[in-house]
Order: sequence, then structure tokens, then C-alpha cells
Amino acid sequence: MTQLAKARSGTTTPEMEQVAEREQVDISWLREKIAEGRIVLPSNMNHRNARPCGVGEGLTIKVNANIGTSSDRAVLEEEIQKLKVAVGAGADTVMDLSTGGDIDLCRRKIVEASPVPVGTVPIYQAVIEAINEKGGLINLTVEKIFDVIERHAEDGVDFITVHCGLTRSALEVLKKNPRVTDIVSRGGAFLTTWMLHHDRENPLYEHYDRLLSIAKKYDLTLSLGDGLRPGCLADATDGAQVHELMTLGNLTKRAWEEGVQVMIEGPGHVPLNQIKANVLLEKQLCHHAPFYVLGPLVTDIAAGYDHVACAIGGAVAGEAGADFLCYVTPAEHLCLPKVEDVREGVIVTKIAAHAGDIARGNKMALERDLKMSEARKRLDWRTQMDLAIDPLKARKLREEDPPSEDDVCTMCGKYCAIKQVKEYFKGP
Amino acid sequence: MTQLAKARSGTTTPEMEQVAEREQVDISWLREKIAEGRIVLPSNMNHRNARPCGVGEGLTIKVNANIGTSSDRAVLEEEIQKLKVAVGAGADTVMDLSTGGDIDLCRRKIVEASPVPVGTVPIYQAVIEAINEKGGLINLTVEKIFDVIERHAEDGVDFITVHCGLTRSALEVLKKNPRVTDIVSRGGAFLTTWMLHHDRENPLYEHYDRLLSIAKKYDLTLSLGDGLRPGCLADATDGAQVHELMTLGNLTKRAWEEGVQVMIEGPGHVPLNQIKANVLLEKQLCHHAPFYVLGPLVTDIAAGYDHVACAIGGAVAGEAGADFLCYVTPAEHLCLPKVEDVREGVIVTKIAAHAGDIARGNKMALERDLKMSEARKRLDWRTQMDLAIDPLKARKLREEDPPSEDDVCTMCGKYCAIKQVKEYFKGP
Repeated sequence: MTQLAKARSGTTTPEMEQVAEREQVDISWLREKIAEGRIVLPSNMNHRNARPCGVGEGLTIKVNANIGTSSDRAVLEEEIQKLKVAVGAGADTVMDLSTGGDIDLCRRKIVEASPVPVGTVPIYQAVIEAINEKGGLINLTVEKIFDVIERHAEDGVDFITVHCGLTRSALEVLKKNPRVTDIVSRGGAFLTTWMLHHDRENPLYEHYDRLLSIAKKYDLTLSLGDGLRPGCLADATDGAQVHELMTLGNLTKRAWEEGVQVMIEGPGHVPLNQIKANVLLEKQLCHHAPFYVLGPLVTDIAAGYDHVACAIGGAVAGEAGADFLCYVTPAEHLCLPKVEDVREGVIVTKIAAHAGDIARGNKMALERDLKMSEARKRLDWRTQMDLAIDPLKARKLREEDPPSEDDVCTMCGKYCAIKQVKEYFKGP
Repeated sequence: MTQLAKARSGTTTPEMEQVAEREQVDISWLREKIAEGRIVLPSNMNHRNARPCGVGEGLTIKVNANIGTSSDRAVLEEEIQKLKVAVGAGADTVMDLSTGGDIDLCRRKIVEASPVPVGTVPIYQAVIEAINEKGGLINLTVEKIFDVIERHAEDGVDFITVHCGLTRSALEVLKKNPRVTDIVSRGGAFLTTWMLHHDRENPLYEHYDRLLSIAKKYDLTLSLGDGLRPGCLADATDGAQVHELMTLGNLTKRAWEEGVQVMIEGPGHVPLNQIKANVLLEKQLCHHAPFYVLGPLVTDIAAGYDHVACAIGGAVAGEAGADFLCYVTPAEHLCLPKVEDVREGVIVTKIAAHAGDIARGNKMALERDLKMSEARKRLDWRTQMDLAIDPLKARKLREEDPPSEDDVCTMCGKYCAIKQVKEYFKGP
């Protein structure tokens, strides 16, 4: 039985207990939300060493880090190192998006080593195997797709991205409403190429019941992907995107009927003033299934700093109700992220998630900031360093430039405002 | 005559013409906004080599970079280097906040070298001179304050921060409503110490007419400072802050009566969900004078990454109507920023300003992103690099990790989505 099925039957699982404790929420409230599908708990029955993680309404906003090889760069050790750094920096989940080297081995090693839930995008590997074994993407078979999905499920992958809403009718909408960047999702592009070449329906849509039966068997959470997500601000919130989202809403209900856990993936590139509407659309059209956003990036021109464009969009999406932020690194749009990029991406996205948590009134988040501020008032630098989002970097910056007086910093030096007025305001 | 007085008399100045051209706005519309006080054009009559910069309603959001020595670190050449780097990265103005070394010399050199308007906070120097000449801050005299202000004005400083709204009654509100971090503004702390010690009113408030006469003489724009800005999320939008803001609203009207240009400084540390209200409050209480925000930082725990916390807050403030963003660097709360921190701070704040411009529908901003996206679609990497917010960093990242095929990048390698579906979507 899946966590969803158990929640519906009133059963409290150890995973639910751990999440309730970590999030400081009532266990029966949590079980109810899981039963309603508003919270997912990605937890493959074959991935027993992972710390369960709840994603959805009323919980803290989670952060995912994408790792994995590419066709241009495939070093297994580097990916394991990225996993460690991502988790160390606070990633709540990782996705192995490997497309280079020994993909099966890489995934198995990552699942084995990961203390957090692991996601994948099986269509990547299915296509690559079709190319390697049969000479081309167009020779991809429905069997191959489901064979790879089952392989991932069996290996203990906790959630998979499946672009089930990218249907023939969605592509019709896209063709009638031309875009600037058309399709920027890799999985979406693979499926589109195959569908247009064969003039056939998306197998993940056509054989959705088969997908559900695998998901049910392993309690594999489906992350219904947005193959038609906007790849630039000009394409945001257009017909193709909303058409796909509406299909995902229907597929959400079908998954829930089978007791399968579902979350919905979202954009992408979205102007700041459209983010709230995008979250609302997802929540309404997909019946309050958790929303997992990639960014959103609030400008197209931030190459080299897309992690910052993503942090802006992610924080605002989080405030509006997004539940899960996929990080973006400084390497986005330029190259495969390196270990340092992974670290930077996770921390910056954690800041966005935390800012969203605060805006949503999460008590744990508010408390941490209050403690930090009290330490600031006391000029208690040790506590400030401990409470910083990245104690390593905070300590490093301070130590590299030590102040002449221990209780201040070199920015204001002896003219520190807090130090000056300390005697006048003893505080509450 | 000030730019405001000239605008009122229907005179179009060369500075207005340059701003109208750069912003692609109608010159008579611009003149009208300046006449109404909704746009300022900080342009000291003695700073003739600076490119005029318009700040306010309907214009692009501007970015300021703080530079300057501290008591713990005072190297003139380094500050000149920061000026160059800040302007090179796109800062629209700089503020020299020097409190160490030869403050007069540093300011004069910065004004001389700066191609953009320069701001200062004269109370810093007034206090330091009182300490050096008379043994302590409490020996600061009203004459000294205005002597330093006039010196800055004569030197060509285009705008000064003056904490005129930090009155005795504001301090009463503060005392009755205790805060976590009390006062975090350096200027605010100096004035508070002096006021409480002498049991006297804030000289900048008491002698506001004297300030206005200096401002009028040089066309020195007043940036009415927020000495009581919140220093942590818990203190945001409290009685002391709003009391000060209301006083600034009254002082804005008095400045306008004298033909003096005014902008209003704002927080600080503000939770994401309070930013819009803060912008609204400023616009309403201060009669739509331009709003110049420091951050706002959306969390207290981002030491080492406060530039990112600031970018999140700045973008949202910009969307809501803030006109001018003061950057924050990775060094904030830890040490005096170094040259690299200045660069990072400016670029990240430019991203926030740009995201705000896009959300506000600024045509130039939208056009730049569209061009970038069209280049992406064409896999035209040269144009993508040219249009990036920081072409140097974008090129560096790409060149460090060259793809095996020239038209893609190493992130997706040969599985590039755009490349795959190119033949199916010829585009509009």
C-alpha cells in the first residue's frame, strides 16, 4: 500500500511520524492532508535508507537539487560528490538526471548513497537506450519506456518526472499559438519528436494506467512533468502551458483513484507579476496537488546568475503556495553544474524557500530569524555564525577580515549602530 | 534653480533631455513628473561630469552601490576601484559612506572620478570630526553638522541621506514599543545618542529650513533617511518605523515648497508578505515621492548571501512601485565589502531591478529579454553572451566547459531540447 492508501485507511506510518515530528505538525492533520493528496511523501518501498520528506500544503517549502551526468561530461564520483554537497547544504531531495556514462550504475549508486528521497526522469534513459540499441530516438518503443520506468522503480527511486500531459491536442494548441522558444523541456522534446514523427499519442498519456500500476506497486510518486513549460518570459502562461496543466489536473484525479501519490511540475520562465496566477492555476486546476516549480526565473538575461533569478521567483512562488522548489545553479543555460555550483544553487534556493516559509507564517522559520536577530542585538557573533544559512561562508568572510574590536565587524567598525545605542535600549 | 523649480516653470533642462532619451519617455511627461516631485533628477550644480539619472515613477528602477572606507579599513585606491567596478557592472549611482582615513579627500576623488551621481551621509563625517576634534560624539554641534553638509554640497555631492524624521516623538514611540534590534542605522544611532544625551530635538529636524536652503542652493537632492528602519523581520512595519515615515511625508511637502528635490529611504529587513504594504505606505504617506529601499532583506539568516535576500526583496519592492534599490553585497553583516563583493552586489541587484521593470511592463526591459530568448531559440551563443546581464561571467562559464558540439552547452549536450525540435517548429 502507498502512503496515500495508508493515510486514507487511517493508518499512521513511521514515515508520517517522522515528517510530523520534523515539521512540528499534528500527525492526524498530516495524515488527513496525505489522504487528500495535498501532501505527498515520496518514499519508494525499495529505498529504505532515505529520510522521509513531506511536500505540500502547510509544510515547509522543500528544495530539490538536480545532479547527474551529461553526454558531454560523465564522471560518477563527481555526481556522488554533488549528492553529498547538495544534502550537506540542505537539499531535501535530489534528482539524478544522468544522460551520460553508465546511467543505471550512476542511479543505483546515488540511490544507495542518498539520505534523502531521489527522483529521476526515466524518459531520458529510455531515449538514450533506443538511440544506442536501435539507432535513433524514433525507434523508441512503448515497452522500452515502461521497462526503464520499472527499472527505476525497482531501484528505489522515490519520484519520477513523467510528461503525461504533453498530448497531441496540447501540441495542436502549441502549433496554433506559436512561441518564441517552443519546447525547452528535454523530456518534452523527446516525446514531441517521437509523437510528431509517428503521428501517435504520447505513450505516457495513452498508457497512463500502466504507469499507475507500477507507481502503485512501489509507491513511486508521480511528478507530472510540464513538457510545455515556457522557456522564456514571452511564452509564459500561454495556451499550450495551460492546456497541459489542465490535462495534468485530470490525470491527478485518476492517480488518486488508484492510491498513487502525485505532484505537479511547473514553470520555468515567468515574469514576477504572473507567478501568483500560475500558482493559483495549478492549485485550482490540479485539485491542490503539491506544486513543484523549476525556478521560476523572473528574467531571461541572467545567465551566470540564474540561481538568483530563480531565488526571486521561487520565493514569490513559495509565498503564493508553491510547495517544492527545484534549484537552479549559476551554470544554468551555460554548462553542466560543477560541485561548487550545486552548493551555491542549493543555498540560494534554501534562502528562497525560507523567505517563502516566513511569508507563510511558518513558526519554525520565524523563530530561527528571531534567534538570529537577538544574537545580532547581543553582538553574539558565535550564535550568528551558527544560525546563518551557510555557517561556513559566514565564518570565512568574517575571519578573512577581522575587526579591530571583537564585538563589531569591519563594515561599520567602531561606529557600529547596535553597539552605540546598546546602553539606551536595554530591550524587552 | 533646481531641476524641480525649472520643471515647474516649464523649462526643459539638458539633464531632463538626456534622461528622457535614455528612458525612451516623452520629455514633457518627464518634466511634469519632476514638477510633481514624483521623479527626482539628482544633479548637483557642482557635479557637471556626471550622467544625469532619473529616479521615480514610470522610469526604470535604479540601483545604488555603497562604497567607502571604514574605521577598520581605509584605502583610497580600493574605493576608487570599487567605484569603477560598480559603474562598470551597471550601478546607476554610488554612495560614498566613508568613515575612515581622509574622508574629504576620498569624497572629492570619488565625485571627481564618478560618471554617475554620488550620494553621501554627512552625519557620519560630522560625528567623526566631533570625536576627533572635541573628544566625543556628544560634543557634536549643530554648526558642525551644517558645516559638513555644506562642504559635501559644495564638493558636488548629488544627494545626501539626512535622518530628519528621527524625532523625539519617534523615539518615544520606539521606547513604548520595544524592538528586537532597536536601531541599526548608523546615522540613526549617532543622532539618537546625541539626542538622548542632551535631551534635545534632532538638529536635522529642528533646523530643517537651514538644510533646505543649502539643498536649494546646490540642487542637492535630499534622501530622507530612515534612522528607525527595522533591523530584523520581527521589527518590520512597526510603530517607530511608520511614525518616522509620516514625519518624512510632512518634510517632503516642506521641501517641495522650497523647490528642493526629495526621495524617501525605506527598509531594511521586511518579510516578503509585508513588502507591498511598505511600498504603498511610502507612496501614500510621502505623496508619491520616489522610494529608495535598502534591500529589503526577506530573511535575517542569509549572512554571506544577503545580496540574494536583498535581490528577492528588491524585485518584489520594485514590482510594487519602489524606484531605487540600494544594493547589498555578500559582505553585509560580516565585513566591509571588497571589490569583488561590490561587483556581485551590483549585478544581483540589477537582476532584481530588471525583474521589477519587467513586472511593471517596461518596454525596454521586455525587449531585451525577448531578444535573448530569440537568440536562445536560434542557438546563437554570441548574441546570448552579449545580452547577458554579465557577459564576462557568462562567457567565462561557457568557455571553461566547452561543449562537444558548438551549438549546444554541456548541460544537455547533444540532447538539447531546442536543437531537437527545431525542425518541427519553424517559429513565427
